Amino acid sequence: MKLIRFGEPGKEKPGVHIDGKNFDVSGFIQDYNEQFFEEGGLENLARMLVKYGSDLPVIPNGARLGSPVARPSKIVCIGLNYALHAKETNAKTPSEPVIFLKSTTALIGPNDQVTIPKDSVKTDWEVELAIVIGKKASYVEEAEALQYVAGYTLHNDISEREYQLERNGTWDKGKGCDTFAPIGPWLVTPDEIPDIHQLRLWLTVNGEKMQDGNTNDFIFNIPHVIAYTSRFMTLLPGDIISTGTPAGVALGMATPRYLKPGDEMELGIDHLGSSKQTCIAYAAR
Amino acid sequence: MKLIRFGEPGKEKPGVHIDGKNFDVSGFIQDYNEQFFEEGGLENLARMLVKYGSDLPVIPNGARLGSPVARPSKIVCIGLNYALHAKETNAKTPSEPVIFLKSTTALIGPNDQVTIPKDSVKTDWEVELAIVIGKKASYVEEAEALQYVAGYTLHNDISEREYQLERNGTWDKGKGCDTFAPIGPWLVTPDEIPDIHQLRLWLTVNGEKMQDGNTNDFIFNIPHVIAYTSRFMTLLPGDIISTGTPAGVALGMATPRYLKPGDEMELGIDHLGSSKQTCIAYAAR
Repeated sequence: MKLIRFGEPGKEKPGVHIDGKNFDVSGFIQDYNEQFFEEGGLENLARMLVKYGSDLPVIPNGARLGSPVARPSKIVCIGLNYALHAKETNAKTPSEPVIFLKSTTALIGPNDQVTIPKDSVKTDWEVELAIVIGKKASYVEEAEALQYVAGYTLHNDISEREYQLERNGTWDKGKGCDTFAPIGPWLVTPDEIPDIHQLRLWLTVNGEKMQDGNTNDFIFNIPHVIAYTSRFMTLLPGDIISTGTPAGVALGMATPRYLKPGDEMELGIDHLGSSKQTCIAYAAR
Repeated sequence: MKLIRFGEPGKEKPGVHIDGKNFDVSGFIQDYNEQFFEEGGLENLARMLVKYGSDLPVIPNGARLGSPVARPSKIVCIGLNYALHAKETNAKTPSEPVIFLKSTTALIGPNDQVTIPKDSVKTDWEVELAIVIGKKASYVEEAEALQYVAGYTLHNDISEREYQLERNGTWDKGKGCDTFAPIGPWLVTPDEIPDIHQLRLWLTVNGEKMQDGNTNDFIFNIPHVIAYTSRFMTLLPGDIISTGTPAGVALGMATPRYLKPGDEMELGIDHLGSSKQTCIAYAAR
Protein backbone atom coordinates (compact mmCIF):
# COMPACT_ATOMS: atom_id res chain seq x y z
CA MET A 1 0.00 0.00 0.00
CA LYS A 2 0.94 3.60 -0.53
CA LEU A 3 -0.46 5.90 2.14
CA ILE A 4 -0.87 9.64 1.60
CA ARG A 5 -2.29 12.54 3.55
CA PHE A 6 -3.96 15.40 1.71
CA GLY A 7 -5.56 18.77 2.37
CA GLU A 8 -4.57 22.03 4.03
CA PRO A 9 -1.55 22.11 6.38
CA GLY A 10 -2.64 20.96 9.83
CA LYS A 11 -5.96 19.65 8.52
CA GLU A 12 -4.75 16.72 6.42
CA LYS A 13 -6.95 13.67 5.86
CA PRO A 14 -5.75 10.14 5.14
CA GLY A 15 -5.81 8.60 1.69
CA VAL A 16 -4.16 5.96 -0.47
CA HIS A 17 -2.36 6.06 -3.80
CA ILE A 18 -3.35 3.29 -6.23
CA ASP A 19 -2.20 3.10 -9.87
CA GLY A 20 -1.54 6.79 -10.22
CA LYS A 21 -4.74 7.94 -8.50
CA ASN A 22 -5.32 9.20 -4.96
CA PHE A 23 -8.33 7.98 -2.97
CA ASP A 24 -9.86 9.37 0.22
CA VAL A 25 -10.11 6.90 3.14
CA SER A 26 -11.11 9.45 5.78
CA GLY A 27 -14.54 7.81 5.92
CA PHE A 28 -13.11 4.98 8.00
CA ILE A 29 -9.61 6.12 9.08
CA GLN A 30 -9.13 9.13 11.35
CA ASP A 31 -5.47 9.78 10.64
CA TYR A 32 -2.12 8.03 10.15
CA ASN A 33 -0.88 8.76 13.66
CA GLU A 34 0.55 6.92 16.66
CA GLN A 35 -2.82 5.41 17.54
CA PHE A 36 -3.42 4.21 13.96
CA PHE A 37 -0.20 2.22 13.79
CA GLU A 38 -0.49 1.03 17.41
CA GLU A 39 -3.98 -0.38 16.94
CA GLY A 40 -3.32 -2.42 13.80
CA GLY A 41 -4.47 0.34 11.48
CA LEU A 42 -2.44 -0.94 8.51
CA GLU A 43 -4.15 -4.36 8.60
CA ASN A 44 -7.51 -2.65 8.96
CA LEU A 45 -6.75 -0.35 6.02
CA ALA A 46 -5.75 -3.34 3.85
CA ARG A 47 -9.09 -5.03 4.62
CA MET A 48 -11.01 -1.86 3.82
CA LEU A 49 -9.24 -1.48 0.47
CA VAL A 50 -10.26 -5.03 -0.49
CA LYS A 51 -13.82 -4.26 0.56
CA TYR A 52 -14.27 -0.83 -1.06
CA GLY A 53 -11.62 -0.88 -3.79
CA SER A 54 -12.29 1.61 -6.53
CA ASP A 55 -15.56 2.74 -4.92
CA LEU A 56 -13.52 5.01 -2.68
CA PRO A 57 -13.89 8.75 -3.33
CA VAL A 58 -11.20 10.01 -5.72
CA ILE A 59 -9.12 12.96 -4.54
CA PRO A 60 -8.99 15.67 -7.23
CA ASN A 61 -5.69 16.08 -9.06
CA GLY A 62 -3.69 18.97 -7.68
CA ALA A 63 -4.80 18.52 -4.09
CA ARG A 64 -1.96 19.39 -1.72
CA LEU A 65 -0.17 16.45 -0.13
CA GLY A 66 0.97 16.58 3.50
CA SER A 67 3.51 14.35 5.18
CA PRO A 68 2.11 10.79 4.84
CA VAL A 69 2.49 10.39 8.62
CA ALA A 70 0.94 12.74 11.18
CA ARG A 71 3.35 14.56 13.51
CA PRO A 72 5.30 11.81 15.28
CA SER A 73 6.69 11.85 18.81
CA LYS A 74 10.14 12.20 17.26
CA ILE A 75 12.23 12.28 14.11
CA VAL A 76 15.52 10.49 14.72
CA CYS A 77 18.24 10.98 12.12
CA ILE A 78 21.33 8.93 11.42
CA GLY A 79 24.34 11.02 10.44
CA LEU A 80 27.16 10.05 8.07
CA ASN A 81 25.67 6.70 7.05
CA TYR A 82 27.21 6.66 3.55
CA ALA A 83 31.00 6.41 3.39
CA LEU A 84 31.44 8.93 0.55
CA HIS A 85 29.28 11.50 2.34
CA ALA A 86 31.31 11.14 5.54
CA LYS A 87 34.42 11.71 3.44
CA GLU A 88 33.08 14.78 1.58
CA THR A 89 32.25 16.47 4.90
CA ASN A 90 35.73 15.69 6.29
CA ALA A 91 34.23 13.41 8.94
CA LYS A 92 35.60 10.02 9.91
CA THR A 93 33.61 6.94 8.93
CA PRO A 94 31.70 6.35 12.17
CA SER A 95 32.35 3.16 14.15
CA GLU A 96 28.75 3.15 15.35
CA PRO A 97 25.73 5.15 14.15
CA VAL A 98 25.63 8.88 14.76
CA ILE A 99 22.21 9.87 16.12
CA PHE A 100 20.58 13.26 16.32
CA LEU A 101 17.01 14.52 16.64
CA LYS A 102 15.08 16.80 14.35
CA SER A 103 12.32 18.99 15.79
CA THR A 104 8.95 17.69 14.57
CA THR A 105 7.83 21.28 13.93
CA ALA A 106 10.04 21.02 10.80
CA LEU A 107 7.61 18.58 9.14
CA ILE A 108 5.96 19.67 5.86
CA GLY A 109 4.41 18.04 2.81
CA PRO A 110 6.55 16.65 -0.02
CA ASN A 111 5.94 19.55 -2.41
CA ASP A 112 5.61 22.43 0.06
CA GLN A 113 7.95 25.40 -0.03
CA VAL A 114 11.13 25.31 2.03
CA THR A 115 11.83 28.51 3.96
CA ILE A 116 15.43 29.61 4.16
CA PRO A 117 15.72 30.86 7.75
CA LYS A 118 16.23 34.55 8.50
CA ASP A 119 19.90 35.49 7.99
CA SER A 120 20.75 31.91 6.96
CA VAL A 121 23.70 31.60 4.60
CA LYS A 122 24.27 27.82 4.48
CA THR A 123 20.99 26.00 3.84
CA ASP A 124 21.69 22.60 2.27
CA TRP A 125 19.82 19.55 0.92
CA GLU A 126 20.03 15.83 1.87
CA VAL A 127 17.95 13.15 0.13
CA GLU A 128 17.23 10.32 2.61
CA LEU A 129 15.31 7.11 3.01
CA ALA A 130 13.15 7.36 6.14
CA ILE A 131 11.76 4.46 8.15
CA VAL A 132 8.33 4.78 9.76
CA ILE A 133 8.01 2.68 12.93
CA GLY A 134 4.94 0.43 13.19
CA LYS A 135 5.04 -0.69 16.81
CA LYS A 136 6.70 0.25 20.08
CA ALA A 137 10.39 -0.71 19.96
CA SER A 138 12.81 -0.88 22.88
CA TYR A 139 16.03 -2.96 22.93
CA VAL A 140 14.99 -4.70 19.73
CA GLU A 141 17.25 -7.44 18.32
CA GLU A 142 18.62 -6.86 14.83
CA ALA A 143 17.10 -10.14 13.60
CA GLU A 144 13.62 -8.95 14.59
CA ALA A 145 14.01 -5.28 13.72
CA LEU A 146 12.14 -5.32 10.40
CA GLN A 147 9.00 -6.48 12.20
CA TYR A 148 8.86 -3.00 13.73
CA VAL A 149 8.65 -1.21 10.37
CA ALA A 150 5.33 0.21 9.14
CA GLY A 151 6.88 1.41 5.90
CA TYR A 152 9.34 3.70 4.19
CA THR A 153 9.20 7.21 2.82
CA LEU A 154 11.26 9.92 1.12
CA HIS A 155 12.77 12.70 3.25
CA ASN A 156 14.76 15.80 2.39
CA ASP A 157 16.78 16.34 5.58
CA ILE A 158 17.32 20.07 5.03
CA SER A 159 20.24 21.36 7.08
CA GLU A 160 21.62 24.79 7.90
CA ARG A 161 25.36 24.11 8.08
CA GLU A 162 26.35 27.27 9.94
CA TYR A 163 23.72 26.58 12.63
CA GLN A 164 24.68 22.90 12.68
CA LEU A 165 28.44 23.16 12.82
CA GLU A 166 29.57 26.67 13.73
CA ARG A 167 27.08 27.89 16.34
CA ASN A 168 28.00 25.88 19.45
CA GLY A 169 26.56 22.63 20.59
CA THR A 170 24.90 19.77 18.80
CA TRP A 171 23.69 19.43 15.23
CA ASP A 172 20.05 19.85 16.33
CA LYS A 173 20.26 23.64 15.94
CA GLY A 174 20.72 23.35 12.18
CA LYS A 175 18.34 20.47 11.53
CA GLY A 176 14.99 21.41 13.01
CA CYS A 177 14.15 24.80 11.48
CA ASP A 178 10.58 25.16 10.23
CA THR A 179 10.01 23.44 6.84
CA PHE A 180 13.31 21.51 7.12
CA ALA A 181 11.60 18.09 6.87
CA PRO A 182 9.64 17.64 3.62
CA ILE A 183 8.38 14.06 3.85
CA GLY A 184 6.56 11.92 1.28
CA PRO A 185 4.76 11.69 -1.16
CA TRP A 186 3.92 8.20 0.11
CA LEU A 187 4.40 5.93 3.07
CA VAL A 188 5.09 2.67 1.22
CA THR A 189 4.56 -0.61 3.06
CA PRO A 190 7.53 -3.04 2.99
CA ASP A 191 5.74 -5.63 0.78
CA GLU A 192 5.98 -3.19 -2.17
CA ILE A 193 9.79 -2.91 -2.02
CA PRO A 194 11.80 -5.85 -3.43
CA ASP A 195 15.03 -5.00 -1.59
CA ILE A 196 15.31 -2.03 0.76
CA HIS A 197 19.11 -2.18 0.47
CA GLN A 198 19.06 -1.85 -3.33
CA LEU A 199 17.35 1.47 -3.96
CA ARG A 200 18.71 4.33 -6.00
CA LEU A 201 18.21 7.75 -4.45
CA TRP A 202 18.90 11.07 -6.15
CA LEU A 203 18.44 14.82 -5.83
CA THR A 204 18.67 17.68 -8.30
CA VAL A 205 18.86 21.44 -7.75
CA ASN A 206 17.41 23.49 -10.60
CA GLY A 207 17.61 20.36 -12.75
CA GLU A 208 21.29 19.68 -12.06
CA LYS A 209 22.04 16.28 -10.53
CA MET A 210 23.68 16.78 -7.13
CA GLN A 211 23.16 13.44 -5.35
CA ASP A 212 22.96 10.00 -6.94
CA GLY A 213 23.46 7.14 -4.51
CA ASN A 214 22.17 3.73 -3.60
CA THR A 215 21.10 2.27 -0.28
CA ASN A 216 23.53 -0.58 -0.96
CA ASP A 217 26.18 1.91 0.20
CA PHE A 218 24.79 2.18 3.75
CA ILE A 219 27.45 1.84 6.42
CA PHE A 220 24.75 0.65 8.86
CA ASN A 221 21.80 -1.15 7.31
CA ILE A 222 18.13 -0.76 8.26
CA PRO A 223 17.89 -3.57 10.87
CA HIS A 224 21.07 -2.35 12.54
CA VAL A 225 19.86 1.25 12.64
CA ILE A 226 16.52 0.28 14.23
CA ALA A 227 18.05 -2.10 16.77
CA TYR A 228 20.78 0.38 17.66
CA THR A 229 18.47 3.39 18.07
CA SER A 230 16.06 1.37 20.21
CA ARG A 231 18.82 0.90 22.79
CA PHE A 232 18.92 4.62 23.49
CA MET A 233 15.24 5.57 23.35
CA THR A 234 11.92 3.81 22.91
CA LEU A 235 10.55 4.21 19.40
CA LEU A 236 6.81 4.78 19.22
CA PRO A 237 4.43 3.82 16.41
CA GLY A 238 4.61 6.54 13.76
CA ASP A 239 8.10 7.66 14.79
CA ILE A 240 10.49 8.38 11.93
CA ILE A 241 14.13 7.32 11.58
CA SER A 242 15.90 8.97 8.66
CA THR A 243 18.84 6.88 7.53
CA GLY A 244 21.40 9.39 6.29
CA THR A 245 22.32 10.93 2.96
CA PRO A 246 24.70 9.91 0.17
CA ALA A 247 27.47 12.17 -1.16
CA GLY A 248 26.67 15.31 -3.11
CA VAL A 249 25.57 17.96 -0.61
CA ALA A 250 26.63 21.62 -0.84
CA LEU A 251 28.78 21.27 2.30
CA GLY A 252 30.93 18.76 0.42
CA MET A 253 31.77 21.05 -2.51
CA ALA A 254 35.11 22.81 -2.91
CA THR A 255 33.08 26.01 -3.21
CA PRO A 256 29.74 25.23 -1.54
CA ARG A 257 26.70 26.42 -3.44
CA TYR A 258 24.06 26.75 -0.75
CA LEU A 259 20.35 27.17 -1.41
CA LYS A 260 18.83 30.55 -2.20
CA PRO A 261 15.26 31.74 -2.72
CA GLY A 262 13.88 30.45 -6.02
CA ASP A 263 16.03 27.32 -6.08
CA GLU A 264 14.10 24.16 -6.84
CA MET A 265 15.01 20.80 -5.37
CA GLU A 266 13.68 17.57 -6.81
CA LEU A 267 14.42 14.23 -5.22
CA GLY A 268 13.37 10.62 -5.36
CA ILE A 269 14.00 7.04 -4.31
CA ASP A 270 13.14 3.88 -6.27
CA HIS A 271 9.63 2.66 -5.32
CA LEU A 272 9.08 5.64 -2.98
CA GLY A 273 8.20 8.31 -5.52
CA SER A 274 9.59 11.80 -5.85
CA SER A 275 9.03 15.25 -4.37
CA LYS A 276 9.82 18.81 -5.32
CA GLN A 277 10.38 21.87 -3.15
CA THR A 278 10.97 25.49 -4.06
CA CYS A 279 13.01 27.62 -1.67
CA ILE A 280 11.62 30.90 -0.42
CA ALA A 281 13.05 33.64 1.78
CA TYR A 282 11.90 33.96 5.38
CA ALA A 283 9.09 36.47 5.80
CA ALA A 284 7.63 37.33 9.20
CA ARG A 285 4.02 36.23 9.47
CA MET B 1 -1.57 28.52 40.12
CA LYS B 2 0.18 25.20 40.57
CA LEU B 3 -0.91 22.64 37.99
CA ILE B 4 -0.47 18.90 38.55
CA ARG B 5 -1.37 15.74 36.68
CA PHE B 6 -2.25 12.60 38.62
CA GLY B 7 -3.14 8.97 38.04
CA GLU B 8 -1.59 5.98 36.27
CA PRO B 9 1.18 6.53 33.69
CA GLY B 10 -0.37 7.38 30.34
CA LYS B 11 -3.80 7.97 31.92
CA GLU B 12 -3.08 11.10 33.95
CA LYS B 13 -5.83 13.60 34.70
CA PRO B 14 -5.37 17.33 35.36
CA GLY B 15 -5.50 18.84 38.82
CA VAL B 16 -4.30 21.80 40.85
CA HIS B 17 -2.28 22.13 44.04
CA ILE B 18 -3.66 24.64 46.57
CA ASP B 19 -2.32 25.11 50.10
CA GLY B 20 -0.84 21.62 50.37
CA LYS B 21 -3.85 19.83 48.89
CA ASN B 22 -4.40 18.44 45.39
CA PHE B 23 -7.74 18.97 43.63
CA ASP B 24 -9.18 17.24 40.57
CA VAL B 25 -10.15 19.56 37.71
CA SER B 26 -10.79 16.84 35.12
CA GLY B 27 -14.49 17.70 35.26
CA PHE B 28 -13.86 20.75 33.11
CA ILE B 29 -10.29 20.39 31.77
CA GLN B 30 -9.34 17.55 29.44
CA ASP B 31 -5.58 17.69 29.88
CA TYR B 32 -2.67 20.12 30.10
CA ASN B 33 -1.57 19.64 26.52
CA GLU B 34 -0.80 21.74 23.44
CA GLN B 35 -4.47 22.47 22.82
CA PHE B 36 -5.04 23.54 26.44
CA PHE B 37 -2.31 26.18 26.38
CA GLU B 38 -3.13 27.24 22.81
CA GLU B 39 -6.79 27.88 23.55
CA GLY B 40 -6.34 30.03 26.65
CA GLY B 41 -6.69 27.11 29.04
CA LEU B 42 -4.77 28.82 31.83
CA GLU B 43 -7.16 31.79 31.88
CA ASN B 44 -10.11 29.39 31.79
CA LEU B 45 -8.66 27.34 34.65
CA ALA B 46 -8.17 30.49 36.75
CA ARG B 47 -11.84 31.43 36.24
CA MET B 48 -12.97 27.94 37.17
CA LEU B 49 -10.91 28.00 40.36
CA VAL B 50 -12.60 31.24 41.42
CA LYS B 51 -16.00 29.71 40.64
CA TYR B 52 -15.58 26.27 42.26
CA GLY B 53 -12.77 26.91 44.77
CA SER B 54 -12.73 24.37 47.55
CA ASP B 55 -15.78 22.55 46.18
CA LEU B 56 -13.47 20.74 43.77
CA PRO B 57 -12.97 17.01 44.40
CA VAL B 58 -9.90 16.38 46.57
CA ILE B 59 -7.32 13.92 45.22
CA PRO B 60 -6.43 11.34 47.88
CA ASN B 61 -2.99 11.65 49.46
CA GLY B 62 -0.49 9.25 47.91
CA ALA B 63 -1.95 9.43 44.41
CA ARG B 64 0.83 9.15 41.83
CA LEU B 65 1.81 12.39 40.15
CA GLY B 66 2.68 12.48 36.44
CA SER B 67 4.55 15.18 34.59
CA PRO B 68 2.44 18.36 35.07
CA VAL B 69 2.44 18.80 31.27
CA ALA B 70 1.25 16.16 28.81
CA ARG B 71 3.82 14.88 26.29
CA PRO B 72 4.98 17.98 24.41
CA SER B 73 6.08 18.19 20.78
CA LYS B 74 9.64 18.63 22.06
CA ILE B 75 11.93 19.00 25.04
CA VAL B 76 14.71 21.45 24.19
CA CYS B 77 17.65 21.57 26.58
CA ILE B 78 20.27 24.25 27.04
CA GLY B 79 23.72 22.84 27.79
CA LEU B 80 26.43 24.43 29.96
CA ASN B 81 24.35 27.40 31.13
CA TYR B 82 26.10 27.79 34.49
CA ALA B 83 29.77 28.83 34.35
CA LEU B 84 30.93 26.49 37.14
CA HIS B 85 29.23 23.50 35.51
CA ALA B 86 30.90 24.25 32.16
CA LYS B 87 34.22 24.38 34.01
CA GLU B 88 33.70 21.12 35.94
CA THR B 89 33.01 19.26 32.68
CA ASN B 90 36.10 20.75 31.04
CA ALA B 91 33.95 22.64 28.53
CA LYS B 92 34.51 26.24 27.48
CA THR B 93 32.00 28.82 28.63
CA PRO B 94 29.77 28.97 25.56
CA SER B 95 29.58 32.21 23.57
CA GLU B 96 25.96 31.44 22.64
CA PRO B 97 23.53 28.85 24.04
CA VAL B 98 24.20 25.16 23.40
CA ILE B 99 20.97 23.47 22.29
CA PHE B 100 20.10 19.79 22.20
CA LEU B 101 16.86 17.82 22.13
CA LYS B 102 15.63 15.18 24.56
CA SER B 103 13.31 12.46 23.30
CA THR B 104 9.86 13.02 24.79
CA THR B 105 9.57 9.26 25.49
CA ALA B 106 11.91 10.01 28.42
CA LEU B 107 9.15 11.90 30.28
CA ILE B 108 8.01 10.52 33.68
CA GLY B 109 6.39 11.80 36.84
CA PRO B 110 8.38 13.65 39.53
CA ASN B 111 8.59 10.70 41.93
CA ASP B 112 8.70 7.80 39.47
CA GLN B 113 11.62 5.40 39.37
CA VAL B 114 14.55 6.15 37.07
CA THR B 115 15.76 3.15 35.06
CA ILE B 116 19.50 2.84 34.58
CA PRO B 117 19.78 1.66 30.95
CA LYS B 118 21.01 -1.85 30.16
CA ASP B 119 24.83 -1.97 30.38
CA SER B 120 24.97 1.71 31.36
CA VAL B 121 27.93 2.68 33.52
CA LYS B 122 27.70 6.47 33.59
CA THR B 123 24.16 7.57 34.51
CA ASP B 124 24.23 11.05 36.04
CA TRP B 125 21.86 13.65 37.55
CA GLU B 126 21.19 17.31 36.63
CA VAL B 127 18.73 19.50 38.53
CA GLU B 128 17.25 22.08 36.15
CA LEU B 129 14.66 24.80 35.91
CA ALA B 130 12.36 24.06 32.96
CA ILE B 131 10.24 26.60 31.08
CA VAL B 132 6.84 25.53 29.73
CA ILE B 133 5.86 27.48 26.62
CA GLY B 134 2.36 29.00 26.61
CA LYS B 135 1.96 30.09 23.00
CA LYS B 136 3.53 29.52 19.60
CA ALA B 137 6.92 31.24 19.46
CA SER B 138 9.01 31.91 16.36
CA TYR B 139 11.68 34.62 16.08
CA VAL B 140 10.55 36.13 19.36
CA GLU B 141 12.25 39.31 20.62
CA GLU B 142 13.98 39.06 24.00
CA ALA B 143 11.89 41.94 25.35
CA GLU B 144 8.68 40.03 24.61
CA ALA B 145 9.93 36.53 25.43
CA LEU B 146 8.34 36.23 28.88
CA GLN B 147 4.89 36.66 27.33
CA TYR B 148 5.39 33.20 25.80
CA VAL B 149 5.82 31.44 29.15
CA ALA B 150 3.00 29.36 30.62
CA GLY B 151 5.00 28.54 33.72
CA TYR B 152 8.02 26.86 35.23
CA THR B 153 8.73 23.40 36.57
CA LEU B 154 11.45 21.22 38.09
CA HIS B 155 13.34 18.80 35.82
CA ASN B 156 16.01 16.21 36.51
CA ASP B 157 17.86 16.09 33.16
CA ILE B 158 19.23 12.56 33.65
CA SER B 159 22.20 11.90 31.36
CA GLU B 160 24.22 8.83 30.42
CA ARG B 161 27.70 10.29 29.97
CA GLU B 162 29.19 7.41 28.01
CA TYR B 163 26.26 7.51 25.54
CA GLN B 164 26.43 11.30 25.44
CA LEU B 165 30.15 11.85 25.02
CA GLU B 166 31.92 8.65 23.99
CA ARG B 167 29.55 6.91 21.57
CA ASN B 168 29.79 9.04 18.42
CA GLY B 169 27.63 11.92 17.40
CA THR B 170 25.55 14.34 19.35
CA TRP B 171 24.54 14.45 23.00
CA ASP B 172 21.00 13.25 22.18
CA LYS B 173 22.03 9.59 22.53
CA GLY B 174 22.70 10.00 26.23
CA LYS B 175 19.83 12.33 27.07
CA GLY B 176 16.64 10.67 25.85
CA CYS B 177 16.67 7.20 27.43
CA ASP B 178 13.35 6.11 28.94
CA THR B 179 12.69 7.68 32.39
CA PHE B 180 15.46 10.28 31.86
CA ALA B 181 13.10 13.24 32.26
CA PRO B 182 11.34 13.31 35.64
CA ILE B 183 9.33 16.53 35.56
CA GLY B 184 7.27 18.22 38.26
CA PRO B 185 5.67 18.11 40.82
CA TRP B 186 4.00 21.33 39.66
CA LEU B 187 3.77 23.63 36.71
CA VAL B 188 3.88 26.98 38.52
CA THR B 189 2.54 30.05 36.75
CA PRO B 190 4.89 33.06 36.62
CA ASP B 191 2.78 35.22 38.96
CA GLU B 192 3.75 32.92 41.88
CA ILE B 193 7.50 33.46 41.43
CA PRO B 194 8.92 36.76 42.69
CA ASP B 195 12.14 36.62 40.61
CA ILE B 196 12.86 33.76 38.23
CA HIS B 197 16.54 34.73 38.24
CA GLN B 198 16.87 34.43 42.02
CA LEU B 199 15.94 30.83 42.76
CA ARG B 200 18.05 28.34 44.67
CA LEU B 201 18.17 24.87 43.13
CA TRP B 202 19.69 21.80 44.76
CA LEU B 203 20.00 18.03 44.44
CA THR B 204 21.02 15.32 46.87
CA VAL B 205 21.98 11.67 46.25
CA ASN B 206 21.22 9.39 49.20
CA GLY B 207 20.92 12.49 51.35
CA GLU B 208 24.28 13.94 50.37
CA LYS B 209 24.20 17.41 48.83
CA MET B 210 25.62 17.25 45.31
CA GLN B 211 24.28 20.38 43.62
CA ASP B 212 23.46 23.70 45.23
CA GLY B 213 23.16 26.57 42.80
CA ASN B 214 21.11 29.62 42.03
CA THR B 215 19.51 30.80 38.81
CA ASN B 216 21.30 34.12 39.33
CA ASP B 217 24.33 32.22 37.95
CA PHE B 218 22.76 31.64 34.52
CA ILE B 219 25.09 32.51 31.64
CA PHE B 220 22.02 33.08 29.43
CA ASN B 221 18.87 34.22 31.20
CA ILE B 222 15.31 33.05 30.52
CA PRO B 223 14.28 35.72 27.98
CA HIS B 224 17.51 35.19 26.06
CA VAL B 225 17.09 31.41 26.01
CA ILE B 226 13.52 31.63 24.70
CA ALA B 227 14.31 34.25 22.06
CA TYR B 228 17.43 32.41 20.95
CA THR B 229 15.80 28.98 20.70
CA SER B 230 12.86 30.41 18.77
CA ARG B 231 15.26 31.46 15.98
CA PHE B 232 16.09 27.81 15.23
CA MET B 233 12.71 26.12 15.64
CA THR B 234 9.14 27.12 16.35
CA LEU B 235 8.17 26.48 19.96
CA LEU B 236 4.66 25.14 20.42
CA PRO B 237 2.33 25.57 23.41
CA GLY B 238 3.30 22.98 26.02
CA ASP B 239 6.87 22.62 24.71
CA ILE B 240 9.56 22.47 27.37
CA ILE B 241 12.90 24.29 27.46
CA SER B 242 15.20 23.08 30.22
CA THR B 243 17.69 25.76 31.14
CA GLY B 244 20.82 23.84 32.16
CA THR B 245 22.29 22.58 35.40
CA PRO B 246 24.60 24.11 38.02
CA ALA B 247 27.89 22.50 39.11
CA GLY B 248 27.94 19.27 41.10
CA VAL B 249 27.24 16.44 38.65
CA ALA B 250 29.06 13.10 38.78
CA LEU B 251 30.84 13.86 35.51
CA GLY B 252 32.54 16.79 37.21
CA MET B 253 34.09 14.77 40.08
CA ALA B 254 37.74 13.75 40.19
CA THR B 255 36.46 10.19 40.62
CA PRO B 256 32.92 10.22 39.22
CA ARG B 257 30.35 8.43 41.34
CA TYR B 258 27.65 7.53 38.84
CA LEU B 259 24.18 6.32 39.80
CA LYS B 260 23.51 2.69 40.68
CA PRO B 261 20.31 0.79 41.46
CA GLY B 262 18.93 1.79 44.84
CA ASP B 263 20.36 5.30 44.77
CA GLU B 264 17.86 7.98 45.71
CA MET B 265 17.91 11.44 44.19
CA GLU B 266 16.04 14.33 45.75
CA LEU B 267 15.93 17.74 44.13
CA GLY B 268 14.14 21.05 44.37
CA ILE B 269 13.91 24.67 43.31
CA ASP B 270 12.54 27.58 45.34
CA HIS B 271 8.79 28.02 44.67
CA LEU B 272 8.72 24.96 42.35
CA GLY B 273 8.62 22.19 44.95
CA SER B 274 10.75 19.08 45.15
CA SER B 275 10.84 15.59 43.67
CA LYS B 276 12.44 12.27 44.57
CA GLN B 277 13.47 9.39 42.31
CA THR B 278 14.88 5.99 43.14
CA CYS B 279 17.16 4.33 40.58
CA ILE B 280 16.40 0.80 39.42
CA ALA B 281 18.22 -1.58 37.10
CA TYR B 282 16.89 -2.17 33.59
CA ALA B 283 14.67 -5.23 33.37
CA ALA B 284 13.17 -6.41 30.09
CA ARG B 285 9.40 -6.10 30.13
